[in-house]
Amino acid sequence: MRFWGWGEDAHAGAPPAHGIAWLEARLGASLTAETPPVALEDVRLPASALDDADAAALAQAAGGADAVRTDHAARVLRSAGKGYPDLVRLRAGNADPAPDAVVSPGGREQVAAVLRTCAQRGIAVVPFGGGTSVVGGVEPLREGFRAVVSLDLGGLSRLLELDARSGLARVEAGLRGPELEHLLRARGHTLGHYPQSFEYASVGGWVATRSAGQASTGYGRIDELVRGARLVAPAGELDLPAVPASAAGPDLRELVVGSEGVLGVLTDVTLEVRPRPAAGRYEGWMLPSFAAGCEAFRALAQEDAAPDVARLSDEAETEMSLSLAGLPSAVRAGLDRYLGWRGAAGGSAVITGWEGTADDVRARRARTAAVLRRFGAAPLGRGPGRAWAKGRFHAPYLRDDLLGRGVLAETLETATTWANLARLYREVGDALRRSAPFVACHVSHVYASGASLYFTFLAGQDAEDPIGQWRRVKHEACTAIVAAGGTITHHHAVGRDHAAYLAAEAGVLGVDALRSVKERLDPAGIMNPGKLLA
Amino acid sequence: MRFWGWGEDAHAGAPPAHGIAWLEARLGASLTAETPPVALEDVRLPASALDDADAAALAQAAGGADAVRTDHAARVLRSAGKGYPDLVRLRAGNADPAPDAVVSPGGREQVAAVLRTCAQRGIAVVPFGGGTSVVGGVEPLREGFRAVVSLDLGGLSRLLELDARSGLARVEAGLRGPELEHLLRARGHTLGHYPQSFEYASVGGWVATRSAGQASTGYGRIDELVRGARLVAPAGELDLPAVPASAAGPDLRELVVGSEGVLGVLTDVTLEVRPRPAAGRYEGWMLPSFAAGCEAFRALAQEDAAPDVARLSDEAETEMSLSLAGLPSAVRAGLDRYLGWRGAAGGSAVITGWEGTADDVRARRARTAAVLRRFGAAPLGRGPGRAWAKGRFHAPYLRDDLLGRGVLAETLETATTWANLARLYREVGDALRRSAPFVACHVSHVYASGASLYFTFLAGQDAEDPIGQWRRVKHEACTAIVAAGGTITHHHAVGRDHAAYLAAEAGVLGVDALRSVKERLDPAGIMNPGKLLA
Repeated sequence: MRFWGWGEDAHAGAPPAHGIAWLEARLGASLTAETPPVALEDVRLPASALDDADAAALAQAAGGADAVRTDHAARVLRSAGKGYPDLVRLRAGNADPAPDAVVSPGGREQVAAVLRTCAQRGIAVVPFGGGTSVVGGVEPLREGFRAVVSLDLGGLSRLLELDARSGLARVEAGLRGPELEHLLRARGHTLGHYPQSFEYASVGGWVATRSAGQASTGYGRIDELVRGARLVAPAGELDLPAVPASAAGPDLRELVVGSEGVLGVLTDVTLEVRPRPAAGRYEGWMLPSFAAGCEAFRALAQEDAAPDVARLSDEAETEMSLSLAGLPSAVRAGLDRYLGWRGAAGGSAVITGWEGTADDVRARRARTAAVLRRFGAAPLGRGPGRAWAKGRFHAPYLRDDLLGRGVLAETLETATTWANLARLYREVGDALRRSAPFVACHVSHVYASGASLYFTFLAGQDAEDPIGQWRRVKHEACTAIVAAGGTITHHHAVGRDHAAYLAAEAGVLGVDALRSVKERLDPAGIMNPGKLLA
Repeated sequence: MRFWGWGEDAHAGAPPAHGIAWLEARLGASLTAETPPVALEDVRLPASALDDADAAALAQAAGGADAVRTDHAARVLRSAGKGYPDLVRLRAGNADPAPDAVVSPGGREQVAAVLRTCAQRGIAVVPFGGGTSVVGGVEPLREGFRAVVSLDLGGLSRLLELDARSGLARVEAGLRGPELEHLLRARGHTLGHYPQSFEYASVGGWVATRSAGQASTGYGRIDELVRGARLVAPAGELDLPAVPASAAGPDLRELVVGSEGVLGVLTDVTLEVRPRPAAGRYEGWMLPSFAAGCEAFRALAQEDAAPDVARLSDEAETEMSLSLAGLPSAVRAGLDRYLGWRGAAGGSAVITGWEGTADDVRARRARTAAVLRRFGAAPLGRGPGRAWAKGRFHAPYLRDDLLGRGVLAETLETATTWANLARLYREVGDALRRSAPFVACHVSHVYASGASLYFTFLAGQDAEDPIGQWRRVKHEACTAIVAAGGTITHHHAVGRDHAAYLAAEAGVLGVDALRSVKERLDPAGIMNPGKLLA
């Protein structure tokens, strides 16, 4: 991955000129000047705080001298996740904080040995899977420890077992999305978990952050797919076997899922998998308004008619998507005439997707379509579906490009009940609009009792204090979310950025209860300090 | 409820004579002699350990002198749940242990005040909802405390809020099944949760024990239906709001669900509800064998074709049901001829049920039926479905009647993955057969990754040491479950009876993690001592 942004150069591309022009009009600023990031070798890095004895002890624990790296590139590349403040800092050449070393254990026993070594030596440990956190989850904070290492789980990347009869796959935590799907599909299965970070994020990261993917309305969130888990903690190992259901006390899996590295290191998990889908269909619709779309999505969820992918853009996001898509003007005019005729002009775009057997896709599509039509949906056919599928993992590249043009481009997300959705949408939008000239939103996950809201906002960057600017907007948005009764995060997790808001949701006593578990599993407090329970 | 057994006299009835004869042949013993339970007034009760100052303090906390009862009937009726050893003890007139008082707070504030008073005075607290635990969950154990009170939650029985848009009902913990359904159905909704204890058990008890109901394959287990919860603990209150989904750290709801009163008292919960079903259909089928039935049920679960109620009896349970049903001999002969012609003679009976709109029931029934036919199912029509629905809550009455005739009649349950189901079935059955001449089993809940197994076993009671006999069989069965990789309980919970086996499933460190939460929420350790984490 590029150290200063998302993904790889080969997949990046600049937005089209008409898209830039549209954005310029929205932001009232010129976006032509581009500030390139510094070169990797020019990034400033603090000296490693580890001494030779530390390095030797870590190497012995992790399985060899090769397993401990302190070189420039290794440390810079694990000095941050992919959140806005991370990228602002790295683009400017500042990799402080950075890990004092990157430790890459080859297996579970080595993970346990590294944790023991770090606990003895007072070294903080930041588990690192794909490094795609957008909430500061992998920032190498010291929090009073004399050193911090990034524990790279790339060496734990095997499919350990596939139980086809039970539809269960036991996989190591360091496996990335594409490799996992490749291994599963070769044996006739799929997990069906496609967060936007799919190409880079790891299974352990998904589980540690309660990840939701683009098709999770159908396949289920990762927390619904985890049946068993193994957590290696400084105090020992939690090995939670896969059972389909149990009444044996509080579900310890749910202590491990979402633990964000503060209790220990997930080394392997057992996930529910399904037969590899034989067919898939994605298509677009236009609803008369976001409000009508929310009603339609509520009906889909409550009438058991939801597609696997269900995405509803509000009017602003719809307009942005159409403007950036670069439709020829005659096509756009024709579309607008069609939508006017269908009563959906200026409306809200919907993407729906189904996967499964051909019969299943056909039957389920019919159910979804019947509900959408009841709410005035105008069908747009498969074109928009194909376009969405083609670009489904590429939004972060646009953010990075805009960052280079002096734009604060950021996203945040929440969820609430259907009864509270309109209020949450309005109040978080209002909070963002106080600082950002452009705010858009979509619903990407629906449940019987409610839905998620995913906001995108754009503002001219404060060149003097870009991180302070970001912090102020973020705080206003989080405060609005809490006040309006939303969850502080639907799928980005807590990390560093949301830790201050956790008690508003879990309660002081709830956070204390989690702290008591941490004290038992991680008595020295070395695991990912400054995150989640900070 | 009858203090010495299940339910009410009005609903009880003796098994038919031909049923008794069939059981006598199986057990090789005469079952005609009946030993009646002692009268309530003859039950021996230890003196209350509470002094006047205790009683006054509790009365003040709970809201008045009426809220604290120490009379004979109140204490006897809360001295045990409805497990086999409970009933053996009570039938013989022994109500020791019994609570020193029954405290009935009128609301949440009173619950908190009672817990504070008990913590100050060193009095143990046993939350009591419906009192239907079959694992010793409400046994008033002292465990070193000088006194123990039963905290009766019958006063917390309101429907606090029905959010019809979100399909969420906030209800108080003391509400019983029938009252809850009455309140919900009057407003067009249902929870759809029907454990065998439905008529007496409370919502709080369901949540505290991770209850599963007879239709939970369709509606979901109670742990899947809980969206929000409030736990009043000695150290304070955990108020977990209802959100459809969240990535804000480990899910604290899952610490509360299944906590069995050892962390605090559930006072209200927010549950997902659905539209009241307009139609329902229950019917019977015969599969050629239990093995074929398990394959059929696996296909139902994995092909998204499962009915709401899915019950598969093994050959022994099928034969027992047919024998106890009292079919006229010509009818039985006709049935056997039909089943022989269909290749399902001596097979495994299935009950399927669907609820919803008429269209939905029709469509889903067709899906289920197509899968069952693939595995050789012979349809038996609606008669067996109606018979099952009529008697769905009545099996405990039979157990009580048999107990009076000198029969150890007991059930236990587990769950595992599909790949491991046959092994678990065989090994637990073998363990039971070493002590019980009659062992039967059914699958009552199916999941994508596995299923539950529910065993019934019958043996002549050891009149000298009935509880010791029960304890030995129970230990052998639990040991077999653990060795074969099943969960120690699929829906009966842990309580007193399964506590010794919890670490085999959750791990020593896992149990320790839960203990650390308990120490934070209940520093004096007064909450339901001797259960779950004992």
